[in-house]
Amino acid sequence: MEYTPKTFTLPSLDGISAKSVEEHLSLYQGYVKNFNTISAKMVEYAQDSEKNAHALSELIRRRSFEFDGMRLHEIYFAQFEDGAKELDANSALGQQMEKEYRQHFTEYFKAIGNMRGPGWALLYWDKEAKQFLAGFSGEQHQGHFVTLPVILALDVWEHAYLLDHGALGKTKYIDAFFKNLNWGVIEKRFEEITK
Amino acid sequence: MEYTPKTFTLPSLDGISAKSVEEHLSLYQGYVKNFNTISAKMVEYAQDSEKNAHALSELIRRRSFEFDGMRLHEIYFAQFEDGAKELDANSALGQQMEKEYRQHFTEYFKAIGNMRGPGWALLYWDKEAKQFLAGFSGEQHQGHFVTLPVILALDVWEHAYLLDHGALGKTKYIDAFFKNLNWGVIEKRFEEITK
Amino acid sequence: MEYTPKTFTLPSLDGISAKSVEEHLSLYQGYVKNFNTISAKMVEYAQDSEKNAHALSELIRRRSFEFDGMRLHEIYFAQFEDGAKELDANSALGQQMEKEYRQHFTEYFKAIGNMRGPGWALLYWDKEAKQFLAGFSGEQHQGHFVTLPVILALDVWEHAYLLDHGALGKTKYIDAFFKNLNWGVIEKRFEEITK
Amino acid sequence: MEYTPKTFTLPSLDGISAKSVEEHLSLYQGYVKNFNTISAKMVEYAQDSEKNAHALSELIRRRSFEFDGMRLHEIYFAQFEDGAKELDANSALGQQMEKEYRQHFTEYFKAIGNMRGPGWALLYWDKEAKQFLAGFSGEQHQGHFVTLPVILALDVWEHAYLLDHGALGKTKYIDAFFKNLNWGVIEKRFEEITK
Repeated sequence: MEYTPKTFTLPSLDGISAKSVEEHLSLYQGYVKNFNTISAKMVEYAQDSEKNAHALSELIRRRSFEFDGMRLHEIYFAQFEDGAKELDANSALGQQMEKEYRQHFTEYFKAIGNMRGPGWALLYWDKEAKQFLAGFSGEQHQGHFVTLPVILALDVWEHAYLLDHGALGKTKYIDAFFKNLNWGVIEKRFEEITK
Repeated sequence: MEYTPKTFTLPSLDGISAKSVEEHLSLYQGYVKNFNTISAKMVEYAQDSEKNAHALSELIRRRSFEFDGMRLHEIYFAQFEDGAKELDANSALGQQMEKEYRQHFTEYFKAIGNMRGPGWALLYWDKEAKQFLAGFSGEQHQGHFVTLPVILALDVWEHAYLLDHGALGKTKYIDAFFKNLNWGVIEKRFEEITK
Repeated sequence: MEYTPKTFTLPSLDGISAKSVEEHLSLYQGYVKNFNTISAKMVEYAQDSEKNAHALSELIRRRSFEFDGMRLHEIYFAQFEDGAKELDANSALGQQMEKEYRQHFTEYFKAIGNMRGPGWALLYWDKEAKQFLAGFSGEQHQGHFVTLPVILALDVWEHAYLLDHGALGKTKYIDAFFKNLNWGVIEKRFEEITK
Repeated sequence: MEYTPKTFTLPSLDGISAKSVEEHLSLYQGYVKNFNTISAKMVEYAQDSEKNAHALSELIRRRSFEFDGMRLHEIYFAQFEDGAKELDANSALGQQMEKEYRQHFTEYFKAIGNMRGPGWALLYWDKEAKQFLAGFSGEQHQGHFVTLPVILALDVWEHAYLLDHGALGKTKYIDAFFKNLNWGVIEKRFEEITK
């Protein structure tokens, strides 16, 4: 089955330019396209799977790079829809955050975003242990907590900030990310996966 | 929150010795223990997060290795409980497998298991596209389809087969894995995530 | 021993702006600084190596990221010094390139540079087999041909091109790279390692 | 150019069985074979490089896994030839080790070997800084100090120790490695690269 790029209704963002968002969305569409292409190539090479064994292996090994690029960007862009909104301290999410991180979640998550190298700062929910796990994924298919849903995704590849804030501007971009974040979206995700 | 190792009620397996299973379970317990240790160390170093910034980053980067080692082994061992059982062609899983892979699923998945290097052959379900995605995770925290549940997990680290089949015995072990697999467990997982 | 950032005498480049080079050099200095910091932290934590075992492991695992960022950028920037110069077909390098790649080296190397994801296209020399090996290193510490010297290094992280050519401008940047390349530097490297 | 597996004249080892060595050498030959196969496939797919672009990329990305498996095992096995020999404290290597590590090198290197996951503990020499860099390479193509020669290589994949010491026997194997190590080989390597 072919995947189709989603569209997002994005407001004007503070500290993240329309030009930057436009190019970022093109990259996202590239992930969808390349996931589809690799999937199609796998079928093609499988016609002679013995002759193409090495190629098939490496496409299998790599396909998650494109898939994760697709899904994570979908999680990312949706977080800006309908505009910035603060975390409701009385929501289920707000209470769980208070319980686990006191007032320190944003500071902690920013520090993860500021880790060296391109990647993603991600907040997962482990329903078995009933707790958050925050992590960092290099590139975008490395280091995930397997099977866990992602409720907050902060893209820290260079394309996310370089145009607006320069190659050394990651910290400024991360501040902008939180300034534009619609916490209502995250609250709904949390309700959805904990119900 | 500390994670606790699970126990598994395993039958005698054909082609996978009790000795091999025993050591394998010890490795599993090591993942749980190391996940807990890293989590505790993170709290400890966070007392002086500026001084320990580099150490904290690398523990965050690495923690999924231990978590995924824990979870994937839990998925793995549970697949042998209650003994071997064939796939029911009339089950929801059986029908979806037929639809997507015709008769070729096992052959395809074995080929993934036989890819070069230690890792895991994994079958994920993408509920959005309503289709399976089969993949390979090197070590165990690399290359996952982010957020997707795993319904079938084949461990192909060397510890899974070396004692019973030698360093060149991966293919024999994979055959043994399928001989002992309780497809009923996989069917239930599939029902659970598609309901 | 502390490492010290090198300085480069760079001409004005065609298609790579002074602003972009300036930020790129700052990133390079960041690698040197972080390599030194991690090295110092390792000594510090080793005072209580049992307590800090996990942190030490992860710093050891990561230090090559900073080292390789340092060394590869040194190889990279030196390639522009003294201005663009074409490959001398009669040089030892020119003859070996003709022997191995006919007229196709640049095309081949550009294709490697255009691979998906941030990283480096690299040309190594294997003195044992007396041949080139061209490869791609994700991030910058992954996928190297171990021990082999690098004679040509093309940085394809997003910071190398985004400011001048946009997030989709990798191809244009790679063209610019070759337009500004001083092949005389590469010829000398090749002479040095083959003498 | 095809690479050819080397042969090694190995004495009987203490704590590493002949059976284990025999299987280990077969794995080594597999790396040589697979490097050659991938190299040949690359030429084949390059006949239609547009159609095969994704497959070519992934073979390029992966080839270093096989190459490094080949070279590191050649470095590894040669270390046992002619039988165990202690480090000569008066050799150039012995003096440099004393200068950098005092009496702690072996202890330090064993700790690296005991890091979590399969891989290699490696000692490199940086001729520019005139110092050693010790590191850990996951699998075998990740985390190398780019371009630096390796003078000591300790394989800690599970196949190196599982047959003789069990899945939990890495520490015992590492002790056996040092018991059988011919430091004379390492001394010569060091002389060779520092002359």
